[in-house]
Amino acid sequence: MNNYPTKVYLNGTIIDAESAKISVFDRGFLFGDGIYEVMVQINGHFFYEQAHLDRLAYCLKEIDIVFDLSTIQQEIKRLLEVAKLLSEDCLLYMQVTRGTAPRTHSYPTNTPPTFMMYAVPKVLPEINMINAAVVTSPDYRWTKCDIKMTSLLGNVMANEFAMNQQCFETVFERDGIVTEASHCNVFFVKDQVVYTHPANQFILNGITRQIVLELCIKLNIEAVEKGIQFSEITEMDEAFLTGTSTQIASIQQIDKHFYYQGNAIGSITRKLQQAYLELK
Amino acid sequence: MNNYPTKVYLNGTIIDAESAKISVFDRGFLFGDGIYEVMVQINGHFFYEQAHLDRLAYCLKEIDIVFDLSTIQQEIKRLLEVAKLLSEDCLLYMQVTRGTAPRTHSYPTNTPPTFMMYAVPKVLPEINMINAAVVTSPDYRWTKCDIKMTSLLGNVMANEFAMNQQCFETVFERDGIVTEASHCNVFFVKDQVVYTHPANQFILNGITRQIVLELCIKLNIEAVEKGIQFSEITEMDEAFLTGTSTQIASIQQIDKHFYYQGNAIGSITRKLQQAYLELK
Repeated sequence: MNNYPTKVYLNGTIIDAESAKISVFDRGFLFGDGIYEVMVQINGHFFYEQAHLDRLAYCLKEIDIVFDLSTIQQEIKRLLEVAKLLSEDCLLYMQVTRGTAPRTHSYPTNTPPTFMMYAVPKVLPEINMINAAVVTSPDYRWTKCDIKMTSLLGNVMANEFAMNQQCFETVFERDGIVTEASHCNVFFVKDQVVYTHPANQFILNGITRQIVLELCIKLNIEAVEKGIQFSEITEMDEAFLTGTSTQIASIQQIDKHFYYQGNAIGSITRKLQQAYLELK
Repeated sequence: MNNYPTKVYLNGTIIDAESAKISVFDRGFLFGDGIYEVMVQINGHFFYEQAHLDRLAYCLKEIDIVFDLSTIQQEIKRLLEVAKLLSEDCLLYMQVTRGTAPRTHSYPTNTPPTFMMYAVPKVLPEINMINAAVVTSPDYRWTKCDIKMTSLLGNVMANEFAMNQQCFETVFERDGIVTEASHCNVFFVKDQVVYTHPANQFILNGITRQIVLELCIKLNIEAVEKGIQFSEITEMDEAFLTGTSTQIASIQQIDKHFYYQGNAIGSITRKLQQAYLELK
């Protein structure tokens, strides 16, 4: 089970988690009007930190929240010190909302954003040994999925849909094309070629997704950014999920179709998992 | 400008608004994982109260939040008493979230929902005399718009898009069909026939929308629940918005097209506004 962190950083102050409270008029609470980012510290440094911070800046800009990120690395360090996680493997969650104001849809003026973050100890396995079962669903989410927003009810419902079936994830299909999963990107392999949906408004451009595409180049594996047809998922040779804490997780079963018997994992998936491990 | 209420009801307790705080781990804040409802008290009673409470129950069920509504009317009364609004015209906002738990997408177990509400004085005009200018946008929101959820970033962005152009609303178009606006339903009139999008997953089935359809029957005005083609909006004779606090608001201008010169309002719109007023 997940646990609460001991400490929370809230608008410059580091406090005990149980004291970390925001106004009910915070637009994060009233409207899901905010964005977030998650990164993991491994062996004393945040894995692909700059890519995560760049995406945070991109998302803030996309939804017009003006928030100064110039001191964020110092502030993260300060939080980790107080939380006694400075040199521990941990997961860092960061959220910025449009701040607190009387409720009205349009953006308030002169309202400072709310910035909250916390870290929890998290030791990721060297390689994610899960061989996941996943289910599928029409993609009923909005069409600005490149924004890592906190209006996540669609993702939350899809994730719950998977859990209810003892599955790891729900893989979405939009207009006949596989897009991504509720909190992971999804890849397929057919005839030694790796396929994943292009980074457009229909998916979040995951950092791990980008790393996997770079690893394909390095390993001389052909990779194509093309969403595969939903009707073709059972014809694929391999499938896997990617995500910051999921890393690279093989998919054994999608709906009623099995890619593998027993605990077998496809050779391309294995190669990418091994190469990913070596980046750490 | 909107103001904060004086009092907030939070999980059974009525407190000053500035003390009304929730945990940063409330799923309303982390995930927009909640639903809301708004109703107005006019002349000492909530207008179509049962319809609003029924929709609240419907939305809770749709997202699997178990929350007992059996005492809600007593609790509303208790809040209004403390807020000194028992016999005042006011707007009541209610929000239920999935409660507070360590962050993970799927639903926590044994977590009581968070229930927040507040009332602010609000005297609606007898008839909304606005003759609104509206803009249009592709409908990039999710496709479960019948759920009145707090994951509202899409609506918020669309409303801001209108405000930036000194307009009252953004009217959405999905696959060539007009759906609704960022926080109103939209109606058109052509050759004395009233058109509005059918109540399915692409719109919120507004209470005022339903009232207007009933008024059409009463007034012997033909009404068709059919989304009009976006390409035909300039060919319509009249257009108007509906909503709990918007009531029935004429649309004078959509993008660059004017339905009326000066402050004229279409005859069907006027008839419906008058009949609506008589319901109060």
